[in-house]
Amino acid sequence: MSMLCVGSVALDSVETPFGSAERVLGGSAVFFTSAATLLAPVSVVGVVGDDYPLDALDFLANRGADLSGIEKREGKSFFWAGRYHADMGGRDTLATELGVFADFQPKIPEALRKSRHVFLGNIAPSLQHDVLDQVESPEVVACDTMNYWIEGSRDSLVSLLDRVDILMINDEEARQLADECNLVKASKWIRDRGPDIVVVKKGEHGAILFADDWLFFVPGFPLEEVFDPTGAGDCFAGGFMGHVEQTGSLDPDDLRRAMVYGSIMGSFAVERFSVDRFIDLTPDAIEARMAQFHEMTAFQSHAQVEARV
Amino acid sequence: MSMLCVGSVALDSVETPFGSAERVLGGSAVFFTSAATLLAPVSVVGVVGDDYPLDALDFLANRGADLSGIEKREGKSFFWAGRYHADMGGRDTLATELGVFADFQPKIPEALRKSRHVFLGNIAPSLQHDVLDQVESPEVVACDTMNYWIEGSRDSLVSLLDRVDILMINDEEARQLADECNLVKASKWIRDRGPDIVVVKKGEHGAILFADDWLFFVPGFPLEEVFDPTGAGDCFAGGFMGHVEQTGSLDPDDLRRAMVYGSIMGSFAVERFSVDRFIDLTPDAIEARMAQFHEMTAFQSHAQVEARV
Repeated sequence: MSMLCVGSVALDSVETPFGSAERVLGGSAVFFTSAATLLAPVSVVGVVGDDYPLDALDFLANRGADLSGIEKREGKSFFWAGRYHADMGGRDTLATELGVFADFQPKIPEALRKSRHVFLGNIAPSLQHDVLDQVESPEVVACDTMNYWIEGSRDSLVSLLDRVDILMINDEEARQLADECNLVKASKWIRDRGPDIVVVKKGEHGAILFADDWLFFVPGFPLEEVFDPTGAGDCFAGGFMGHVEQTGSLDPDDLRRAMVYGSIMGSFAVERFSVDRFIDLTPDAIEARMAQFHEMTAFQSHAQVEARV
Repeated sequence: MSMLCVGSVALDSVETPFGSAERVLGGSAVFFTSAATLLAPVSVVGVVGDDYPLDALDFLANRGADLSGIEKREGKSFFWAGRYHADMGGRDTLATELGVFADFQPKIPEALRKSRHVFLGNIAPSLQHDVLDQVESPEVVACDTMNYWIEGSRDSLVSLLDRVDILMINDEEARQLADECNLVKASKWIRDRGPDIVVVKKGEHGAILFADDWLFFVPGFPLEEVFDPTGAGDCFAGGFMGHVEQTGSLDPDDLRRAMVYGSIMGSFAVERFSVDRFIDLTPDAIEARMAQFHEMTAFQSHAQVEARV
């Protein structure tokens, strides 16, 4: 059995201070799957237009992704264009053309309805509800969202929380959703509405996992060049959920490692345009970066040093 | 021998969403020493006016601080007043009255001129130079600064870097000083000009230590209430340098722990107004928080798990 991922399969045009890329692979499901399949198999449900270069996704199929749930329809694929500011601190959206995505009605193939692990990419909460209506008692449902849905589909999103085990959300979005500027309190507000676990993503500052009586902090990997931040959050989710699918465990020690895989994949994502960094990424490179994360966060407490002496 | 700290000894009036405090203990040297003396002795050099309640510093003297280097002069003490925004995301300065601090000429008492460890609080770079001119071959010089000096006394500050071992600086100030928005590159720019170690403080997001061929990341401690952020950076420096003074070591493992002590002291600082949290703070409370930092950052890498199986 593989993990089910439902999200956008898109084309992106991106300009950064380092260059530009035209109509390259993008969308939450594509970024997520590019990262997650390095750890565990993924089945994707999405929709593309007849302009989509599905062959370009062969590298995912070769790594065990089941792409048969990507429906091809007459019309244009979801297209997004953006330009990042000189300091990479923000971006301007130049175009958002929904195309066939405007009428997306996720249909979960029979074989995927028993998926144990489900990732709901950043799509309308009503569609995220639709997906869950079609899946039989999944063990873990993780979900992403964005400010657009928090503002425009608040009730649907809040009712969805009760069906979600892990909400993955940006810090600003967590504050907006809970109407609370303190992240500890905002995460409690969210957890009170359903999710046992809230993962707050803070971009270059890393991410925090909030659970019932513990939390875990993973830094962002300090890079000299952030080439293209597009999709980093989806790749974080892919690393995190890839580890969940691989281990089948939500034990704290496994969730800690899931957080680190998330930050690792997010850090690789921004090193190139699109999903380019994932095409040839090796397990050795991933484990080497995990060792770097360990080195940059591990310390012995005073009590541990005393005990050793 | 104790550590030498030169900085401001001030009175602060602070308004936060949680309340207000009038003319309470403040200044970089006071915050630094409140944190550092929980780990090691400190000798303070500074200046106050005849309005300063020096008795209120007795708790520092009782913990081994030597305050005889605080000169009392006719006139008003350095006074700062500020109001924090409702979301604690920023603050407005309501008043800055230098008083006797305007003519501060640090005179290092004979007994302190052989100090091994020196902390230069956030004062004019020319005064920081003056201090170093009076200290005989210190082993470790750490230094703080701020945007005001980066803009107004750039040359003096850059020439100071060559005399400094550890620069402690905010992320925005590091970017401004190096004119480089990437922190990895900015820290290299700074290290190329003298300091072996650059500690970049990122407020609630924690801090990063950049050294020659390694780095270390400590998160901020997630608090439900940030009561008053004033002085948190100085208390971070106090925790960091207190550990350096205590151990006499710049070994990476000790510097990692110094970073954690820094973040611990910064997290205590914001829990109350002024230095109030440090007055009764116990070693047990500090070590308990260190255990919490360990719990929220420690993970076993994939390779470690494999090796164990």
